[in-house]
Amino acid sequence: MDQTAIFQLTYGVHILATKNKDKENACIINTCIQLTQDPMRVSIAVLKTNLTHDMIKESNQFSISIISKDASLDTIAHFGLQSGRKVNKLEGTPYEKDILGNPLILLDSLATLSCEVEQKIDLDTHTMFIAKVVDAHNVKQGEPMTYAEYRALKAGKDKKAVYQCSVCHYIYDGEIPFEELPDDYVCPICKQPKEVFKKI
Amino acid sequence: MDQTAIFQLTYGVHILATKNKDKENACIINTCIQLTQDPMRVSIAVLKTNLTHDMIKESNQFSISIISKDASLDTIAHFGLQSGRKVNKLEGTPYEKDILGNPLILLDSLATLSCEVEQKIDLDTHTMFIAKVVDAHNVKQGEPMTYAEYRALKAGKDKKAVYQCSVCHYIYDGEIPFEELPDDYVCPICKQPKEVFKKI
Repeated sequence: MDQTAIFQLTYGVHILATKNKDKENACIINTCIQLTQDPMRVSIAVLKTNLTHDMIKESNQFSISIISKDASLDTIAHFGLQSGRKVNKLEGTPYEKDILGNPLILLDSLATLSCEVEQKIDLDTHTMFIAKVVDAHNVKQGEPMTYAEYRALKAGKDKKAVYQCSVCHYIYDGEIPFEELPDDYVCPICKQPKEVFKKI
Repeated sequence: MDQTAIFQLTYGVHILATKNKDKENACIINTCIQLTQDPMRVSIAVLKTNLTHDMIKESNQFSISIISKDASLDTIAHFGLQSGRKVNKLEGTPYEKDILGNPLILLDSLATLSCEVEQKIDLDTHTMFIAKVVDAHNVKQGEPMTYAEYRALKAGKDKKAVYQCSVCHYIYDGEIPFEELPDDYVCPICKQPKEVFKKI
Protein backbone atom coordinates (compact mmCIF):
# COMPACT_ATOMS: atom_id res chain seq x y z
CA MET A 1 0.00 0.00 0.00
CA ASP A 2 1.39 3.36 -1.07
CA GLN A 3 -0.07 5.95 1.29
CA THR A 4 0.91 8.79 -1.05
CA ALA A 5 -1.64 7.65 -3.66
CA ILE A 6 -4.35 9.48 -1.74
CA PHE A 7 -2.54 12.81 -2.34
CA GLN A 8 -4.01 12.71 -5.87
CA LEU A 9 -7.51 13.50 -4.58
CA THR A 10 -8.51 17.05 -5.49
CA TYR A 11 -9.85 19.66 -3.05
CA GLY A 12 -10.64 23.32 -2.89
CA VAL A 13 -9.47 25.66 -0.12
CA HIS A 14 -12.05 27.22 2.19
CA ILE A 15 -12.30 29.42 5.26
CA LEU A 16 -14.55 27.70 7.78
CA ALA A 17 -16.02 30.12 10.36
CA THR A 18 -18.51 29.93 13.20
CA LYS A 19 -20.01 31.95 15.99
CA ASN A 20 -20.67 30.26 19.33
CA LYS A 21 -22.21 32.49 21.98
CA ASP A 22 -19.99 35.59 21.99
CA LYS A 23 -16.96 33.98 20.38
CA GLU A 24 -16.13 33.88 16.67
CA ASN A 25 -13.37 31.91 15.02
CA ALA A 26 -12.25 30.71 11.61
CA CYS A 27 -9.79 28.20 10.14
CA ILE A 28 -8.85 26.72 6.77
CA ILE A 29 -10.25 23.41 5.54
CA ASN A 30 -10.01 21.57 2.24
CA THR A 31 -12.80 19.05 2.80
CA CYS A 32 -16.13 20.57 1.83
CA ILE A 33 -18.32 18.80 -0.70
CA GLN A 34 -21.92 18.99 -1.78
CA LEU A 35 -23.89 15.90 -0.77
CA THR A 36 -27.45 16.49 -1.97
CA GLN A 37 -29.34 19.15 -3.89
CA ASP A 38 -32.79 19.04 -2.28
CA PRO A 39 -32.29 19.91 0.50
CA MET A 40 -28.89 21.34 -0.36
CA ARG A 41 -26.40 19.69 1.97
CA VAL A 42 -22.64 19.73 2.38
CA SER A 43 -20.21 17.83 4.55
CA ILE A 44 -16.98 19.00 6.16
CA ALA A 45 -14.40 17.01 8.12
CA VAL A 46 -12.68 18.97 10.88
CA LEU A 47 -9.74 17.98 13.06
CA LYS A 48 -10.81 17.64 16.69
CA THR A 49 -7.86 19.66 18.03
CA ASN A 50 -9.08 22.76 16.15
CA LEU A 51 -10.88 25.33 18.28
CA THR A 52 -13.34 25.83 15.42
CA HIS A 53 -14.24 22.12 15.74
CA ASP A 54 -15.27 22.49 19.38
CA MET A 55 -17.19 25.67 18.66
CA ILE A 56 -19.19 24.13 15.76
CA LYS A 57 -19.98 21.11 17.92
CA GLU A 58 -21.80 23.50 20.25
CA SER A 59 -23.07 26.16 17.85
CA ASN A 60 -24.28 23.67 15.19
CA GLN A 61 -23.69 26.25 12.48
CA PHE A 62 -20.88 27.45 10.24
CA SER A 63 -20.03 29.44 7.15
CA ILE A 64 -17.77 28.46 4.27
CA SER A 65 -15.92 31.05 2.17
CA ILE A 66 -14.61 29.47 -1.04
CA ILE A 67 -11.14 30.86 -1.72
CA SER A 68 -10.18 32.28 -5.10
CA LYS A 69 -7.15 31.09 -7.10
CA ASP A 70 -5.66 34.59 -6.83
CA ALA A 71 -5.93 34.79 -3.03
CA SER A 72 -2.83 35.87 -1.17
CA LEU A 73 -1.00 33.33 0.90
CA ASP A 74 -1.17 35.82 3.77
CA THR A 75 -4.95 35.46 3.96
CA ILE A 76 -4.73 31.70 4.09
CA ALA A 77 -1.83 31.66 6.53
CA HIS A 78 -3.66 34.13 8.78
CA PHE A 79 -6.57 31.74 9.18
CA GLY A 80 -4.81 28.44 8.62
CA LEU A 81 -1.62 28.59 10.63
CA GLN A 82 -2.57 30.34 13.84
CA SER A 83 -4.78 29.06 16.63
CA GLY A 84 -7.89 30.88 17.75
CA ARG A 85 -6.94 29.77 21.25
CA LYS A 86 -4.03 32.23 21.18
CA VAL A 87 -5.07 35.03 18.86
CA ASN A 88 -8.35 36.56 17.79
CA LYS A 89 -8.01 35.88 14.08
CA LEU A 90 -10.95 38.08 13.21
CA GLU A 91 -9.58 41.16 14.96
CA GLY A 92 -8.33 43.56 12.32
CA THR A 93 -9.75 41.41 9.50
CA PRO A 94 -12.67 42.91 7.59
CA TYR A 95 -15.63 40.55 7.66
CA GLU A 96 -19.38 40.50 7.45
CA LYS A 97 -21.92 38.24 9.12
CA ASP A 98 -24.26 35.75 7.53
CA ILE A 99 -27.93 35.23 8.40
CA LEU A 100 -26.90 32.88 11.22
CA GLY A 101 -24.39 35.33 12.70
CA ASN A 102 -21.31 33.44 11.44
CA PRO A 103 -18.37 35.52 10.18
CA LEU A 104 -18.04 35.71 6.37
CA ILE A 105 -14.55 36.53 5.17
CA LEU A 106 -15.23 38.03 1.75
CA LEU A 107 -11.70 39.14 0.84
CA ASP A 108 -10.26 36.59 -1.61
CA SER A 109 -13.56 34.63 -1.65
CA LEU A 110 -15.61 33.64 -4.68
CA ALA A 111 -18.72 32.47 -2.85
CA THR A 112 -20.10 31.80 0.62
CA LEU A 113 -22.33 29.12 2.13
CA SER A 114 -24.20 29.35 5.44
CA CYS A 115 -24.88 25.99 7.02
CA GLU A 116 -26.85 24.40 9.86
CA VAL A 117 -25.49 21.12 11.22
CA GLU A 118 -27.80 18.11 10.85
CA GLN A 119 -25.49 15.24 11.84
CA LYS A 120 -22.12 14.76 13.53
CA ILE A 121 -20.13 11.64 12.69
CA ASP A 122 -17.29 10.78 15.07
CA LEU A 123 -14.17 9.69 13.15
CA ASP A 124 -11.56 9.36 15.92
CA THR A 125 -9.27 12.29 15.03
CA HIS A 126 -11.92 14.24 13.11
CA THR A 127 -15.64 14.95 13.24
CA MET A 128 -17.64 15.01 10.03
CA PHE A 129 -20.41 17.58 10.10
CA ILE A 130 -23.29 17.05 7.67
CA ALA A 131 -25.14 20.31 7.25
CA LYS A 132 -28.01 21.94 5.41
CA VAL A 133 -27.09 25.00 3.33
CA VAL A 134 -29.56 27.68 4.42
CA ASP A 135 -28.03 30.59 2.53
CA ALA A 136 -25.52 30.97 -0.30
CA HIS A 137 -24.06 33.87 -2.26
CA ASN A 138 -21.61 34.52 -5.06
CA VAL A 139 -19.07 37.18 -4.11
CA LYS A 140 -17.13 37.69 -7.35
CA GLN A 141 -16.24 35.99 -10.62
CA GLY A 142 -13.13 33.86 -10.74
CA GLU A 143 -11.68 30.41 -10.42
CA PRO A 144 -11.43 28.58 -7.10
CA MET A 145 -8.02 27.74 -5.67
CA THR A 146 -7.22 24.05 -5.54
CA TYR A 147 -5.39 22.60 -2.60
CA ALA A 148 -2.54 21.63 -4.97
CA GLU A 149 -2.23 25.29 -6.03
CA TYR A 150 -2.16 26.35 -2.39
CA ARG A 151 0.72 23.98 -1.77
CA ALA A 152 2.54 25.27 -4.86
CA LEU A 153 1.99 28.85 -3.69
CA LYS A 154 3.53 28.00 -0.34
CA ALA A 155 6.49 26.24 -1.95
CA GLY A 156 7.26 29.27 -4.13
CA LYS A 157 7.78 31.68 -1.25
CA ASP A 158 11.12 32.54 0.30
CA LYS A 159 11.92 30.13 3.04
CA LYS A 160 12.57 31.25 6.58
CA ALA A 161 12.42 27.90 8.34
CA VAL A 162 11.85 24.47 6.89
CA TYR A 163 10.12 21.65 8.69
CA GLN A 164 9.29 18.31 7.17
CA CYS A 165 6.59 15.90 8.26
CA SER A 166 8.24 12.59 9.07
CA VAL A 167 5.03 10.72 8.21
CA CYS A 168 4.06 11.98 4.74
CA HIS A 169 7.16 14.12 3.93
CA TYR A 170 5.13 17.27 3.46
CA ILE A 171 7.39 20.32 3.70
CA TYR A 172 6.28 23.30 5.76
CA ASP A 173 8.45 26.07 4.43
CA GLY A 174 7.84 28.72 7.01
CA GLU A 175 6.86 31.69 4.89
CA ILE A 176 4.84 33.12 7.73
CA PRO A 177 6.35 34.71 10.80
CA PHE A 178 6.84 31.67 13.00
CA GLU A 179 10.30 30.57 13.93
CA GLU A 180 8.70 27.53 15.50
CA LEU A 181 5.61 25.71 14.32
CA PRO A 182 2.57 26.69 16.40
CA ASP A 183 1.76 24.18 19.15
CA ASP A 184 -1.49 23.14 17.56
CA TYR A 185 -0.09 22.98 14.05
CA VAL A 186 -1.06 19.82 12.21
CA CYS A 187 0.23 18.54 8.90
CA PRO A 188 -2.19 19.79 6.23
CA ILE A 189 -1.68 16.55 4.31
CA CYS A 190 -1.64 13.71 6.81
CA LYS A 191 -3.07 15.59 9.82
CA GLN A 192 -0.30 14.49 12.18
CA PRO A 193 0.64 16.89 15.02
CA LYS A 194 3.60 19.26 15.27
CA GLU A 195 5.62 16.58 17.08
CA VAL A 196 6.19 14.51 13.91
CA PHE A 197 7.83 17.50 12.11
CA LYS A 198 11.63 17.65 11.88
CA LYS A 199 13.66 20.76 11.04
CA ILE A 200 15.61 20.12 7.82
CA MET B 1 -30.04 32.50 -1.57
CA ASP B 2 -28.13 31.96 -4.81
CA GLN B 3 -28.02 28.21 -5.42
CA THR B 4 -25.23 28.60 -8.00
CA ALA B 5 -22.74 29.68 -5.29
CA ILE B 6 -22.15 26.03 -4.46
CA PHE B 7 -20.80 25.42 -7.99
CA GLN B 8 -17.54 27.05 -6.79
CA LEU B 9 -16.66 24.02 -4.67
CA THR B 10 -13.78 22.08 -6.23
CA TYR B 11 -13.77 18.34 -6.92
CA GLY B 12 -11.74 15.73 -8.72
CA VAL B 13 -13.16 13.17 -11.14
CA HIS B 14 -13.05 9.50 -10.21
CA ILE B 15 -14.16 6.11 -11.48
CA LEU B 16 -15.99 4.32 -8.66
CA ALA B 17 -16.11 0.53 -9.14
CA THR B 18 -17.32 -2.45 -7.16
CA LYS B 19 -17.79 -6.19 -7.35
CA ASN B 20 -20.87 -7.72 -5.77
CA LYS B 21 -21.13 -11.50 -6.08
CA ASP B 22 -20.54 -12.17 -9.79
CA LYS B 23 -21.38 -8.68 -11.02
CA GLU B 24 -18.98 -5.81 -11.56
CA ASN B 25 -19.86 -2.22 -12.35
CA ALA B 26 -18.36 1.26 -12.40
CA CYS B 27 -19.53 4.85 -12.61
CA ILE B 28 -18.11 8.37 -12.34
CA ILE B 29 -18.23 10.37 -9.13
CA ASN B 30 -16.75 13.70 -8.07
CA THR B 31 -17.27 13.39 -4.31
CA CYS B 32 -14.36 11.49 -2.78
CA ILE B 33 -12.42 13.07 0.06
CA GLN B 34 -9.97 11.87 2.67
CA LEU B 35 -11.43 12.01 6.18
CA THR B 36 -8.74 10.68 8.49
CA GLN B 37 -5.16 9.49 8.21
CA ASP B 38 -4.98 6.79 10.87
CA PRO B 39 -6.86 4.71 9.92
CA MET B 40 -6.93 6.15 6.41
CA ARG B 41 -10.57 6.80 5.59
CA VAL B 42 -12.45 8.39 2.70
CA SER B 43 -16.07 9.26 2.09
CA ILE B 44 -18.06 9.14 -1.14
CA ALA B 45 -21.63 10.30 -1.79
CA VAL B 46 -23.47 8.22 -4.40
CA LEU B 47 -26.87 8.83 -6.00
CA LYS B 48 -29.31 6.12 -5.00
CA THR B 49 -30.58 5.57 -8.54
CA ASN B 50 -27.09 4.40 -9.64
CA LEU B 51 -26.67 0.64 -9.97
CA THR B 52 -23.22 1.01 -8.42
CA HIS B 53 -24.90 2.47 -5.32
CA ASP B 54 -27.06 -0.63 -4.80
CA MET B 55 -24.12 -2.93 -5.41
CA ILE B 56 -21.85 -1.15 -2.88
CA LYS B 57 -24.64 -1.23 -0.32
CA GLU B 58 -24.46 -5.02 -0.52
CA SER B 59 -20.78 -5.60 -1.26
CA ASN B 60 -19.50 -3.04 1.28
CA GLN B 61 -16.41 -2.47 -0.82
CA PHE B 62 -15.30 -0.28 -3.71
CA SER B 63 -12.33 1.02 -5.64
CA ILE B 64 -11.59 4.59 -6.70
CA SER B 65 -9.49 5.39 -9.78
CA ILE B 66 -8.40 9.03 -9.72
CA ILE B 67 -8.65 10.42 -13.25
CA SER B 68 -5.79 12.29 -14.90
CA LYS B 69 -6.15 15.78 -16.39
CA ASP B 70 -5.24 14.36 -19.81
CA ALA B 71 -7.90 11.63 -19.76
CA SER B 72 -10.07 11.33 -22.83
CA LEU B 73 -13.69 12.34 -22.57
CA ASP B 74 -14.55 8.96 -24.08
CA THR B 75 -13.28 7.16 -20.99
CA ILE B 76 -15.34 9.33 -18.69
CA ALA B 77 -18.44 9.19 -20.88
CA HIS B 78 -18.14 5.42 -21.12
CA PHE B 79 -18.39 5.07 -17.34
CA GLY B 80 -20.36 8.19 -16.53
CA LEU B 81 -23.15 8.39 -19.05
CA GLN B 82 -24.31 4.83 -19.51
CA SER B 83 -26.12 2.64 -17.01
CA GLY B 84 -24.76 -0.70 -15.87
CA ARG B 85 -28.36 -1.86 -15.86
CA LYS B 86 -28.31 -1.76 -19.68
CA VAL B 87 -24.72 -2.38 -20.70
CA ASN B 88 -21.77 -4.19 -19.20
CA LYS B 89 -19.45 -1.21 -19.00
CA LEU B 90 -16.44 -3.36 -18.20
CA GLU B 91 -16.81 -5.58 -21.27
CA GLY B 92 -14.15 -4.62 -23.76
CA THR B 93 -12.47 -2.24 -21.27
CA PRO B 94 -9.04 -3.31 -20.02
CA TYR B 95 -9.04 -3.47 -16.24
CA GLU B 96 -7.33 -5.18 -13.35
CA LYS B 97 -8.64 -6.25 -9.96
CA ASP B 98 -7.70 -4.95 -6.56
CA ILE B 99 -7.06 -7.05 -3.45
CA LEU B 100 -10.80 -7.03 -2.69
CA GLY B 101 -11.78 -8.14 -6.20
CA ASN B 102 -13.05 -4.71 -7.31
CA PRO B 103 -12.30 -3.61 -10.88
CA LEU B 104 -9.46 -1.08 -11.23
CA ILE B 105 -9.62 0.98 -14.41
CA LEU B 106 -6.00 2.01 -14.85
CA LEU B 107 -6.25 3.73 -18.24
CA ASP B 108 -6.26 7.50 -17.65
CA SER B 109 -5.82 7.00 -13.88
CA LEU B 110 -3.14 8.53 -11.65
CA ALA B 111 -3.81 6.46 -8.55
CA THR B 112 -6.19 3.90 -7.09
CA LEU B 113 -7.72 3.34 -3.66
CA SER B 114 -9.34 0.12 -2.42
CA CYS B 115 -11.91 0.66 0.29
CA GLU B 116 -14.02 -1.27 2.80
CA VAL B 117 -17.26 0.41 3.90
CA GLU B 118 -17.50 1.22 7.62
CA GLN B 119 -20.65 3.36 7.74
CA LYS B 120 -23.58 4.20 5.47
CA ILE B 121 -25.35 7.53 6.01
CA ASP B 122 -28.78 7.87 4.41
CA LEU B 123 -29.19 11.30 2.79
CA ASP B 124 -32.54 10.98 0.99
CA THR B 125 -31.38 11.02 -2.66
CA HIS B 126 -27.84 9.83 -1.91
CA THR B 127 -26.00 7.51 0.43
CA MET B 128 -22.71 8.57 1.94
CA PHE B 129 -20.31 5.67 2.37
CA ILE B 130 -17.52 6.15 4.90
CA ALA B 131 -14.79 3.63 4.18
CA LYS B 132 -11.38 2.47 5.31
CA VAL B 133 -8.67 2.55 2.64
CA VAL B 134 -7.12 -0.93 2.75
CA ASP B 135 -4.89 -0.60 -0.31
CA ALA B 136 -3.61 2.29 -2.43
CA HIS B 137 -1.29 2.62 -5.42
CA ASN B 138 0.12 5.29 -7.68
CA VAL B 139 -0.35 4.42 -11.35
CA LYS B 140 1.53 7.21 -13.11
CA GLN B 141 2.79 10.75 -12.66
CA GLY B 142 0.51 13.60 -13.65
CA GLU B 143 -2.06 16.08 -12.48
CA PRO B 144 -5.60 15.08 -11.51
CA MET B 145 -8.52 16.34 -13.56
CA THR B 146 -10.80 18.76 -11.75
CA TYR B 147 -14.53 18.59 -12.22
CA ALA B 148 -14.40 22.11 -13.73
CA GLU B 149 -11.92 20.86 -16.35
CA TYR B 150 -14.17 17.91 -17.10
CA ARG B 151 -17.04 20.30 -17.76
CA ALA B 152 -14.81 22.50 -19.96
CA LEU B 153 -13.69 19.40 -21.88
CA LYS B 154 -17.30 18.46 -22.51
CA ALA B 155 -18.20 22.00 -23.59
CA GLY B 156 -15.38 22.07 -26.15
CA LYS B 157 -16.62 19.08 -28.13
CA ASP B 158 -18.81 19.28 -31.22
CA LYS B 159 -22.40 19.33 -30.23
CA LYS B 160 -24.84 16.71 -31.47
CA ALA B 161 -27.76 17.40 -29.17
CA VAL B 162 -28.13 20.02 -26.48
CA TYR B 163 -30.16 19.56 -23.34
CA GLN B 164 -30.35 22.02 -20.49
CA CYS B 165 -31.21 21.31 -16.88
CA SER B 166 -34.19 23.44 -15.95
CA VAL B 167 -33.10 23.48 -12.30
CA CYS B 168 -29.46 24.59 -12.38
CA HIS B 169 -29.12 25.47 -16.10
CA TYR B 170 -26.29 23.02 -16.65
CA ILE B 171 -25.92 22.26 -20.36
CA TYR B 172 -25.49 18.67 -21.50
CA ASP B 173 -24.02 19.06 -24.94
CA GLY B 174 -24.37 15.55 -26.22
CA GLU B 175 -20.88 14.80 -27.44
CA ILE B 176 -21.41 11.13 -26.89
CA PRO B 177 -23.55 8.92 -29.09
CA PHE B 178 -26.94 9.41 -27.49
CA GLU B 179 -29.70 11.13 -29.38
CA GLU B 180 -31.70 11.02 -26.17
CA LEU B 181 -30.39 11.28 -22.63
CA PRO B 182 -30.13 7.86 -20.98
CA ASP B 183 -33.12 7.04 -18.76
CA ASP B 184 -31.06 7.09 -15.61
CA TYR B 185 -29.11 10.21 -16.54
CA VAL B 186 -28.88 12.71 -13.72
CA CYS B 187 -27.61 16.25 -13.84
CA PRO B 188 -23.93 16.13 -12.80
CA ILE B 189 -24.35 19.47 -11.06
CA CYS B 190 -27.66 19.42 -9.23
CA LYS B 191 -28.35 15.66 -9.42
CA GLN B 192 -31.87 16.10 -10.80
CA PRO B 193 -33.18 13.32 -13.08
CA LYS B 194 -33.47 13.29 -16.89
CA GLU B 195 -37.03 14.60 -16.67
CA VAL B 196 -35.96 18.13 -15.71
CA PHE B 197 -33.83 18.47 -18.89
CA LYS B 198 -35.21 20.41 -21.86
CA LYS B 199 -33.90 20.24 -25.42
CA ILE B 200 -32.63 23.70 -26.43
